Amino acid sequence: MNFCSQCGEPVELRIPAGDHLPRYVCGYCGTIHYLNPRIIAGCVPDHQGRILLCRRAIEPRRGYWTFPAGFMENDETVQQAAARESLEEAQAHVEVGSLLAIVHVLEAHQVHVFFRALLPRAQFGISPESLEVGLFGEQDIPWADIAFPSIEFALRHYLADRAAGREEHHFTTAARRPPM
Amino acid sequence: MNFCSQCGEPVELRIPAGDHLPRYVCGYCGTIHYLNPRIIAGCVPDHQGRILLCRRAIEPRRGYWTFPAGFMENDETVQQAAARESLEEAQAHVEVGSLLAIVHVLEAHQVHVFFRALLPRAQFGISPESLEVGLFGEQDIPWADIAFPSIEFALRHYLADRAAGREEHHFTTAARRPPM
Repeated sequence: MNFCSQCGEPVELRIPAGDHLPRYVCGYCGTIHYLNPRIIAGCVPDHQGRILLCRRAIEPRRGYWTFPAGFMENDETVQQAAARESLEEAQAHVEVGSLLAIVHVLEAHQVHVFFRALLPRAQFGISPESLEVGLFGEQDIPWADIAFPSIEFALRHYLADRAAGREEHHFTTAARRPPM
Repeated sequence: MNFCSQCGEPVELRIPAGDHLPRYVCGYCGTIHYLNPRIIAGCVPDHQGRILLCRRAIEPRRGYWTFPAGFMENDETVQQAAARESLEEAQAHVEVGSLLAIVHVLEAHQVHVFFRALLPRAQFGISPESLEVGLFGEQDIPWADIAFPSIEFALRHYLADRAAGREEHHFTTAARRPPM
């Protein structure tokens, strides 16, 4: 951030009075610009035991696999965001279910919120965001080519909970990218 | 938003290519400025059955009661944010526990994430953000003077779950302010 989005003058990084962290502050109009984590919403769509995965068509991690997920917008719930991403990325109409995982990706300033979901019909397709979309049995999941650690964390808990007949939620902190 | 925070030139509101929502786009440097919901983190600190509440010293809803909660910062987890807010607003060292509630406040572009918490010692105090801080038994909670619907929602579920001996989590969508 270099300029004030309110008045267009340069901002400076300093600790405002009564605050404890440096903020971008406009020296002209006085606006304080707070930077906060953003929410990534997603879900694990399950169709008769198989899971819908997408191969990413865009960076970061183009060519790697993920379940549908993306930035939450204003004016929607986290569940609505997860359903919207399934439609946008995979042309898939899902029914979002219980909370599966909340993953802090500190270095990316993101909080990933993932749900279980039902994919009632095996209807889906590619999109500008997905090179391939497909249903994967548990034995066929491309673990070596999963796009992000948060996605792997959620998938593994999804499968373990499903096998145990439970629907728990899981917190963790994960790296932005898999280890090299 | 009027100006590009990257280059200082005016932004315009339009739908970028490949997108489906209007965004603030810089006509000069091309930066697309996404606006996303922000997370409010908080917790219900319980000391031997009584709950720690703060009377707000700042707007909005100055003079009304809340449990400690505030904007999540970058580089912290939601639980760390909840503990930090307890310390800042009430000088209270808490141990954050299980997830209690996720409340969408659509009109404010906020997601409120609240936890149960343990307040091991009855040590707390006022702050620049709190006119009064105190421990309240269930019968003494000032329901008519609770600051926000999301806070009331979480408090009521906290008490109901505690009475039932369970620790569930609850989703809802709530208004920013109580009805007039």
